[in-house]
Amino acid sequence: MPVRKTKRAARKQSTPATAQSLAKKQREISISEFFTKNRHLLGFDSPAKALLTTIKEAVDNALDACEDAGVLPDVLVEIRTVNGKTHTVSESNQSGTLELSQPGSKNNKHNKETKNSDHSAGVLAKTAAATTTTTATTAVTAANGTKTAGPVREEKYLIIVEDNGPGIVRKQIPRIFGKLLYGSKFHSLKQSRGQQGIGISAAGMYGQLTTGQPVVIISRTHPKTDAHRFQILLDTKKNEPVVDSDESIAWEKEHGTRVEIILTGSYKRGQNSVDTYLQQTAIANPHLRLVYRSPRGEETVFKRAAANLPEAATEIRPHPYGVELGLMARMLKDTKCRNVSSFLKEEFCRVGPKTARTILETAVLPPRKNPKRVTQGELQNLLESIAATRIPAPPTDCLSPIGEELVLAGLKHGIAADFYTSVTRPPAVYRGNPFQIEIGLAYGGQLPGEELARVMRFANRVPLLYQASACAISKAVLNSNWRSYGLQQSRGASPAAPLVILVHMASVWVPFTSESKEAIAHYPEIIKEIKLGLQEAGRQLKRHIRRRVREKDALKKQSYIQQYIPHIGDALQEILALNETQRSKVIHKLTDTLQRSRKL
Amino acid sequence: MPVRKTKRAARKQSTPATAQSLAKKQREISISEFFTKNRHLLGFDSPAKALLTTIKEAVDNALDACEDAGVLPDVLVEIRTVNGKTHTVSESNQSGTLELSQPGSKNNKHNKETKNSDHSAGVLAKTAAATTTTTATTAVTAANGTKTAGPVREEKYLIIVEDNGPGIVRKQIPRIFGKLLYGSKFHSLKQSRGQQGIGISAAGMYGQLTTGQPVVIISRTHPKTDAHRFQILLDTKKNEPVVDSDESIAWEKEHGTRVEIILTGSYKRGQNSVDTYLQQTAIANPHLRLVYRSPRGEETVFKRAAANLPEAATEIRPHPYGVELGLMARMLKDTKCRNVSSFLKEEFCRVGPKTARTILETAVLPPRKNPKRVTQGELQNLLESIAATRIPAPPTDCLSPIGEELVLAGLKHGIAADFYTSVTRPPAVYRGNPFQIEIGLAYGGQLPGEELARVMRFANRVPLLYQASACAISKAVLNSNWRSYGLQQSRGASPAAPLVILVHMASVWVPFTSESKEAIAHYPEIIKEIKLGLQEAGRQLKRHIRRRVREKDALKKQSYIQQYIPHIGDALQEILALNETQRSKVIHKLTDTLQRSRKL
Repeated sequence: MPVRKTKRAARKQSTPATAQSLAKKQREISISEFFTKNRHLLGFDSPAKALLTTIKEAVDNALDACEDAGVLPDVLVEIRTVNGKTHTVSESNQSGTLELSQPGSKNNKHNKETKNSDHSAGVLAKTAAATTTTTATTAVTAANGTKTAGPVREEKYLIIVEDNGPGIVRKQIPRIFGKLLYGSKFHSLKQSRGQQGIGISAAGMYGQLTTGQPVVIISRTHPKTDAHRFQILLDTKKNEPVVDSDESIAWEKEHGTRVEIILTGSYKRGQNSVDTYLQQTAIANPHLRLVYRSPRGEETVFKRAAANLPEAATEIRPHPYGVELGLMARMLKDTKCRNVSSFLKEEFCRVGPKTARTILETAVLPPRKNPKRVTQGELQNLLESIAATRIPAPPTDCLSPIGEELVLAGLKHGIAADFYTSVTRPPAVYRGNPFQIEIGLAYGGQLPGEELARVMRFANRVPLLYQASACAISKAVLNSNWRSYGLQQSRGASPAAPLVILVHMASVWVPFTSESKEAIAHYPEIIKEIKLGLQEAGRQLKRHIRRRVREKDALKKQSYIQQYIPHIGDALQEILALNETQRSKVIHKLTDTLQRSRKL
Repeated sequence: MPVRKTKRAARKQSTPATAQSLAKKQREISISEFFTKNRHLLGFDSPAKALLTTIKEAVDNALDACEDAGVLPDVLVEIRTVNGKTHTVSESNQSGTLELSQPGSKNNKHNKETKNSDHSAGVLAKTAAATTTTTATTAVTAANGTKTAGPVREEKYLIIVEDNGPGIVRKQIPRIFGKLLYGSKFHSLKQSRGQQGIGISAAGMYGQLTTGQPVVIISRTHPKTDAHRFQILLDTKKNEPVVDSDESIAWEKEHGTRVEIILTGSYKRGQNSVDTYLQQTAIANPHLRLVYRSPRGEETVFKRAAANLPEAATEIRPHPYGVELGLMARMLKDTKCRNVSSFLKEEFCRVGPKTARTILETAVLPPRKNPKRVTQGELQNLLESIAATRIPAPPTDCLSPIGEELVLAGLKHGIAADFYTSVTRPPAVYRGNPFQIEIGLAYGGQLPGEELARVMRFANRVPLLYQASACAISKAVLNSNWRSYGLQQSRGASPAAPLVILVHMASVWVPFTSESKEAIAHYPEIIKEIKLGLQEAGRQLKRHIRRRVREKDALKKQSYIQQYIPHIGDALQEILALNETQRSKVIHKLTDTLQRSRKL
């Protein structure tokens, strides 16, 4: 294929670059520019995924906030199609009319929500740029002259997520929703759904990018204070929030947060859909009450299956084994402790006076030395001494697993199978971070036998729907030997069986393969733990399958024996010269014995 | 498993969070803090991968710079183990002696490199914290009391990558090597290896994190100027470079750049090793001369296989179809054009006066309107009008494919097989970004027949060694029907055949699934193009396999006929009453005919 050149291109090409010409092109890249261009890293690579990611980020935040505040979460998720007609008004910012599809009359019992949405609908109408967006991602005639698909019509949707959590303090709202890399969870070692301070602001940025609309936030922290309503945009060049409006309003809720984002998306059903995500969220969060209104106006209520909040996860300090040279150097510099002995005891978990003394003696560091004066050589010795010292594993109350019972209950509730089992592994550690693996299996029943087993992946109670093939969970499933549990499995593939495999990783820091948090990175310690869990559950499954095989065999044998009982009766009659009654009695007894052995 | 609680934890847990207490924890996260904690996103999740990623980033930059400047690249890659003995000196920064393993006497011809490394070795000895690092990532006794593996011993390595490129202007050096998200390629639409401005500074940050050592850079831009030598650290809290030293030095090279990074890593051979990466780099960059010195002191020279640089890729302007609302709004705001008509013609590719007129007429926008005064309604109209207007695909001189011939040559050089084929697809477009797929297949010969086919993935001539399962290339390979080309394939798996599959994606913007650039995101347009290429190559393979089968069949038939020729001779002798000479002649003729038919 010959390469076509534009005139401008040909001109540019004739001058090779020099160090000077290259230097002129060097520029700083803002984090929001970076993620705008790399939006697939955040989970916004397709309209369907964008819709899901937005809901996921908002629900993650809602659940984290409720649990932090000790409130049983009551969450509303609503998706509305946004329709509007475009007018071509030239010098006005109000270029169209906007209609919000109403979720239908059957929602009368939810009067307060309806009221709220009316309120926001009004404001939306004021600012919305209206109309269904036509994007043209594939609307390109390829250079070789063949035509590719025409413009794809995507819809505009209004996403609403509302919780009954503690609310957000007014002055924090702009940065939480309008600045990437801002949050409370990044520096904290504790199991939580959010961890990076990117998710919800990225969702807002995506909405803004595709529709120009600001994020709307309503939040109230206490019945005695007013609710605040913000409209926030993100300045992508500076990665700073721009407050479009900020007002006190009346709100029915005593405390909580409501987020509204308008974006271009695509609503689908099926395996990777919002519906699946919410179902799985309900499985992994039995303490959640969730009301879901789909864009078609249907309302689904996921009832609370557990009356109590899961045991709260506690924040821990870093474990000495997980801290590398660079981080240790910075901790020494930043600490408020006056000597290295208290530094070790205060800044780390599992370091008591005895352990601190051992570490410092091995490192030949005086306990009263100022942390800020530790030289690089001493630092090196300190690290080596830590590695050589036996320190107990980090505490695991920073974790909040679902628990074997609730995993089982979730599976039974969601999946019609013959056999269920669940395993919660003891906590383990990777890179100094505690984590814990839970496994659930559902087998047989109405599950399709000819297909590959379905894998349900969870991280910190959040369902992972995309990038399955990149995930440590998938790798562990593929690399497990399912044949030894009586299942069929091709090389390099999942087992082919009527099987659902649930895997949950709970950790203070889940190492995701990208910012979109869709797959867990391949840390050997994590894969090993998952495989151990699968083995444990697999063995139980094997017992079940074997029992089934044995039962079948026994049935076969019994029916075989049963066939011969009358003949045995005849033979006995002949040998022992029994009369007819005695013969009947013997047959009856033999049959009875067989029946009873069957029951055993 | 009962959850243990520390006293401190129990105390903390008793107070549920409030909006106020949560607000106090909200903090900004610097991009370098973010990537330190999420270092696996950048390809530093294991010591072996860290070593490879560092070399990869430095080689990417070297090749990009050489090609930009029109210089045939001549690159040195060297890995040295760094050994040292720890002394326990208390108040001194010079805590140890340092020995650099010398690459052996056989490298005498490379006197100048040896000289340079002596120079740097001196400075290293001055600053190095010495000794082999002992990290303790897995050295944790799990909370359940069972013991996991002991401390893992990782080695310290000095990585050197030196090129003959245009060099780097002095004042740019600190930011290029000591600041994440700083670079020349992010804002440019042109095929290049680097694109994000993260790679090399992240490698330096990793070195600093694990060894405390600065990055050393020597660069010279012209024979008439001096070389500069920098030692640079990265302030991770601010994401800003810290210049540790900066001096003018004499350097043998007329122009070029040398980077030295000391890091904790692990040197391995095998599938995902540095050796494999360099071999594959040589395949995809036949114009490269590469000298590689392994830590064991062996030197490998990859000779230049093509005498010319690949046709230079040209920077293009964005295509209107790839620009969304948010980006268009910013372009309108930032443009220097005075009216929308020239804005469309100047800022985009493929928009001439006629196309611009059509777009503006459909959008009912006056051509002389000031771009900065376009309202949101008008913006919406503009985008719809663009989507409705037929605009030619972007120019493809921004791409620089390897070419069918060189793909073939590379495969033949590196892989001993029976059959080779290659396909360079015509350019295509995703999200307004031009891209082009190339396929190479090698089949039979000494390749193992019983294993799954090996897939070699490339993006912009860079080999991708990790995260294969997450990559669009793997997905396209798995989802292709290889059975129809005569190969075995299990459901959900690669074909099992003596086969190597090479796939190269060239694009102005390769959508990687993470910053470490190891896997290509699943854009449908990209997967489709790869599958089309695989089909084209697969059909050629099928012809080859069929021919082989036919040949085998023919051979079988021939040997069968050959067996009967004497009998035919006998029969003919009898029927036609031939004499012995005639019979021999007939047999000879028949055999001869058979021989000739075999040759055909």
